[in-house]
Amino acid sequence: MAVYTEVTDEDLDAFLAAYDLGAVLSLKGIAEGVENSNYLLRTEKGTFILTLYEKRVNEAELPFFLNLMDHLAAHGLSCPQPVRAKNGEALGRIAGRPAAMVSFLEGMSVRRPSAAHCAEVGAGLARLHLAGADFPMRRTNSLSLSGWAPLFEGARLRAHEITPGLETLIADELAHVSRVWPQHLPDGVIHADLFPDNVFFLEKHLSGLIDFYFACTDAFAYDAAICLNAWCFEPDASFNVTKGQAFLAGYQSVRPLGTDEIAALPILARGAALRFLLTRLVDWLDVPAGALVRPKDPMEYVKKLRFHQHVKQAADYGLLV
Amino acid sequence: MAVYTEVTDEDLDAFLAAYDLGAVLSLKGIAEGVENSNYLLRTEKGTFILTLYEKRVNEAELPFFLNLMDHLAAHGLSCPQPVRAKNGEALGRIAGRPAAMVSFLEGMSVRRPSAAHCAEVGAGLARLHLAGADFPMRRTNSLSLSGWAPLFEGARLRAHEITPGLETLIADELAHVSRVWPQHLPDGVIHADLFPDNVFFLEKHLSGLIDFYFACTDAFAYDAAICLNAWCFEPDASFNVTKGQAFLAGYQSVRPLGTDEIAALPILARGAALRFLLTRLVDWLDVPAGALVRPKDPMEYVKKLRFHQHVKQAADYGLLV
Repeated sequence: MAVYTEVTDEDLDAFLAAYDLGAVLSLKGIAEGVENSNYLLRTEKGTFILTLYEKRVNEAELPFFLNLMDHLAAHGLSCPQPVRAKNGEALGRIAGRPAAMVSFLEGMSVRRPSAAHCAEVGAGLARLHLAGADFPMRRTNSLSLSGWAPLFEGARLRAHEITPGLETLIADELAHVSRVWPQHLPDGVIHADLFPDNVFFLEKHLSGLIDFYFACTDAFAYDAAICLNAWCFEPDASFNVTKGQAFLAGYQSVRPLGTDEIAALPILARGAALRFLLTRLVDWLDVPAGALVRPKDPMEYVKKLRFHQHVKQAADYGLLV
Repeated sequence: MAVYTEVTDEDLDAFLAAYDLGAVLSLKGIAEGVENSNYLLRTEKGTFILTLYEKRVNEAELPFFLNLMDHLAAHGLSCPQPVRAKNGEALGRIAGRPAAMVSFLEGMSVRRPSAAHCAEVGAGLARLHLAGADFPMRRTNSLSLSGWAPLFEGARLRAHEITPGLETLIADELAHVSRVWPQHLPDGVIHADLFPDNVFFLEKHLSGLIDFYFACTDAFAYDAAICLNAWCFEPDASFNVTKGQAFLAGYQSVRPLGTDEIAALPILARGAALRFLLTRLVDWLDVPAGALVRPKDPMEYVKKLRFHQHVKQAADYGLLV
């Protein structure tokens, strides 16, 4: 949550000369997004989010994300829609950074989702999967199976600092999921990071999905497994099967899961828990002493992973068959 | 520039129940203000800034600031106007913090003010002084003469870390301004921190003044002296007399300075430079090793102070008599 690059009035005037958005009314740096700098921009033509892509973003991947949002919005999904300059380009530069503007979405994220919110998210995720079905670009999921071992190697010697035995837990889990990871599931564009921060609601109804910067080409059911982790556990890391049921029923009301996807759900959920455990572990160990920002606690995902290890079938998540 | 306290959807619902602003449309933490947490709130009734007052703010002083903004707005100044709850209160609590909402002002601050901007600010500052003339509350300026010695005492032994001889420079300056500091100048509500960050423009015209949390009762001409420091120097710390002339002419077009104020201007400008030198010095020395945020450079005000030491009369700032 930060603004890493300051945008001055002069920077903005130079940037907006390429667009047809009228005079600027205001610009506020907003505390949203971890990797990039985001501004809320108001002009005579409306309200927009201006994003400056910071160093950790691979500029070559930006067309995938921007074209994807364009495609999804054009197919009826409520998501940020890139604003194109007069020359048709969605990607520009401001203050020395690659930058893009997208439409502003109304809505509030929820801190403690109810089962009703989970049902909305399930349906929203399935709509995303359908809306992206004919999107022509592909992006490998760098944070799937093949990406987990390198993450682990960089952190394994200090994993015990989080909890005793964590190195063994992860090594065993990594070996297990590598053996049984499902292949050939229905795939396409997935969001891959649809946490409550990235879903807006208005009056209890889903009003939009944001932050597509982890989106990639992967199994649809894996995206659902990420959401089971992100939406259906309580703060004490106990699984709320009512929320799981609501999420899965919401999803299936739009896109029914196949028998192969249903059979794979427990291992996908384990893999998803392992993925967030690993990135949180790396971030946690990476924090300099005395830093003001505490990263998210990896222990949350240790607990979730242990839950999934005891799940036998998709029905344990509340799937009604 | 930070959001120190997170406001959840639940916190906001509880807080807004006391107001008559309709349903929430969005809430974004904004990177504005150094001391407090600020959010941009959109509801069915409009756009507002929600401020949570953090630990360094003295809660007992909040009614002064809120009533002042109310008074100034009622007297035609374009400044944030507090939003009152159904019970008439402007000050509430959210997420355990004192909090208030104010109206949102359109406009952009300028990074490199032109002489035309300086003229606008001069006139705006004078309008503020006139609009506050009959404001009944008083607040002592804790960062005026009597506050400078304690700031210096806390930092003097490390002042040489900024530049050799800085301890002597400040000690001598403090002795000098204490001897000749003007008394009995016309006084009233001053902004006391009217830097470019706190002034909005739309299409080259001043559209609003913000951040009244240093406002206090002090000499009007001292406020003008702060602006000479904040607006009329170039990035290399050279004084731009064209900007000084524009600022002072703009001020006098609304509120002509008295002969006592004109005579006092050079010493007030020295005092203002010393005030910002001291607070920047304290902030600079206070930063923990490895911190991500670099405070503003005290050297800028060392250079400005040295300029003022050679000023003989208000005409040297561009005052036309």
